Amino acid sequence: MRLPSPLPQFRYAQIVALWALLLIGGCATVRTDPLPSWNEGKVKQSIVGFVAKVTTQGSPDFVPIPERIATFDNDGTLWAEQPLYSQLFFVFERVKVLAPQHPEWRTVEPFASVLKGDLKGALSGGDKSLVELIGATSTGMSTAEFATMVSQWLATAKHPRFDQPYTSMVYQPMIELLAYLRANGFKTFIVSGGGIEFMRPWTERVYGVPPEQVVGSSGKTQFEMRDGKPVLMRLPELGFIDDGPGKPVGINLHIGRRPIFAFGNSDGDLQMLQWTAACSGVCFMGLVHHTDAVREWAYDRQSSIGRLDKALDEAQAKGWTVVDMKQDWNVIFSFEKK
Amino acid sequence: MRLPSPLPQFRYAQIVALWALLLIGGCATVRTDPLPSWNEGKVKQSIVGFVAKVTTQGSPDFVPIPERIATFDNDGTLWAEQPLYSQLFFVFERVKVLAPQHPEWRTVEPFASVLKGDLKGALSGGDKSLVELIGATSTGMSTAEFATMVSQWLATAKHPRFDQPYTSMVYQPMIELLAYLRANGFKTFIVSGGGIEFMRPWTERVYGVPPEQVVGSSGKTQFEMRDGKPVLMRLPELGFIDDGPGKPVGINLHIGRRPIFAFGNSDGDLQMLQWTAACSGVCFMGLVHHTDAVREWAYDRQSSIGRLDKALDEAQAKGWTVVDMKQDWNVIFSFEKK
Repeated sequence: MRLPSPLPQFRYAQIVALWALLLIGGCATVRTDPLPSWNEGKVKQSIVGFVAKVTTQGSPDFVPIPERIATFDNDGTLWAEQPLYSQLFFVFERVKVLAPQHPEWRTVEPFASVLKGDLKGALSGGDKSLVELIGATSTGMSTAEFATMVSQWLATAKHPRFDQPYTSMVYQPMIELLAYLRANGFKTFIVSGGGIEFMRPWTERVYGVPPEQVVGSSGKTQFEMRDGKPVLMRLPELGFIDDGPGKPVGINLHIGRRPIFAFGNSDGDLQMLQWTAACSGVCFMGLVHHTDAVREWAYDRQSSIGRLDKALDEAQAKGWTVVDMKQDWNVIFSFEKK
Repeated sequence: MRLPSPLPQFRYAQIVALWALLLIGGCATVRTDPLPSWNEGKVKQSIVGFVAKVTTQGSPDFVPIPERIATFDNDGTLWAEQPLYSQLFFVFERVKVLAPQHPEWRTVEPFASVLKGDLKGALSGGDKSLVELIGATSTGMSTAEFATMVSQWLATAKHPRFDQPYTSMVYQPMIELLAYLRANGFKTFIVSGGGIEFMRPWTERVYGVPPEQVVGSSGKTQFEMRDGKPVLMRLPELGFIDDGPGKPVGINLHIGRRPIFAFGNSDGDLQMLQWTAACSGVCFMGLVHHTDAVREWAYDRQSSIGRLDKALDEAQAKGWTVVDMKQDWNVIFSFEKK
């Protein structure tokens, strides 16, 4: 059947209606799973359920947007920390680059071990060795120069096991979680024991977390005029260690508001989780448990890097969410996604 | 003339067209002056012109939203600092409240002078006296207890000259400027020599600046468990002085990105302005010059509070914006607005 030719007015109406539909359609939400790398189960449900509770207007657990603060540990929570923290690979690389200017390093520890490739030996001196290594390689230059160094290293360095750039060694499920929380009005922060200036050059690009939402360990800096230009010089002086009991201190100093959502993976995150758990309303505490020796690593109570022992006990006792990496994540690294 | 009755289709078209217009209309901007308390002139023009430049897509000076960082000093820039910094009035009040528990204060300086109401005498010991007063009145309690104290004091204390709550002693033109910048995609920060935890309980309500965007001076805190509850105790130990050359250090530590817009009022802001002026593109540096002895105060090169000397010279030499309070502001305090 052929319809009669429409009146000119009706054709105009059709165009207007189409526009109106497009405008209205632009506002409608397309519902797809925001956490596709998380397998269905009680862990995923605990996250989605919590977010629904605090974002539903009129719910007794509703939290206004400015108070939706979420904090994430970095090493072992957002990216891999085995066989060593990435920042240590950076420091070891800097020792090698600077060695020709320091012939004495060939016989002085911990430098000698680093130059011989004996990483275990290099770290046998504990925190004292670490502070010495960082002092010798990451201070004495401006903050801008240090940021350039970090970016240049990340552009070429590859992880020893996976042969991927370190910034690809990030957990795809956690990238999805960060984006999901932000889409629900959360402000996402990193609260890491790692160096604050080691993280800031890349966290915005990789995690969507801007520099002002990164909390970390830091050395002291000093304002100076050099050739009439202001610079901040990195001094070989420890400022703040954002780990363990330092995490609530760092959260208070940088954020000034208690998180309602926190995720960690080791005993170094226990106090951050305890601080979060003391919230006045509902709050979410999560741990990543590394249980997949095939796709990533399996480690917890005995590991020297990222030991998870006391925090695992407390999580089990208090009913915090514990991610079983092997079971709960169908993708681990972002580079597995094409 | 009576129009012929429209066809049913056309009536439908009218409704749809109306909806489309409403939807489109909802996106249109109503143009009113966002800075009504600023008189027309080159100062106001320098602000509006800068914002237009950095927010116009395709302009060579366009700055992406995440990089639109604006930093404001607090005392003398956002609220009054005469005859004394408000935090000092708070500290003096605390000395009086705590005096019965410290009979020795009646004879020990600087406490004795405070108790006699001799504020000049109390401050004659300089920074050492200040640190002692703050240590004795603002430490030894938890961060939560301190925040409650500040809020309670602000709820009742009145400014000695204007008989207004201290949080009404804020500059209406600057409140408008903060809102105007935020409406143009800027993130607004406070970078003050004042105590970070003295400011955070009220900056969100008064300035629209959330706690995580407040940078200030701080003492050390320590994580402790008290009766099974985690607390952060305020230690009588100086942490960081966010003043003068400390301001770029504080900006780097808390924000990690150089501001493109900064406003101060004293020599304590000079390094923040220099740090901002070393931006890679265009940037805005502003000073509030207190020139109105009738409506506020007139002070600059000779003042012990808020001295403006070197920064005024540098502003004049480099063409930074200098607000002449008397001439450029038609309203000063927020309480003048009804």
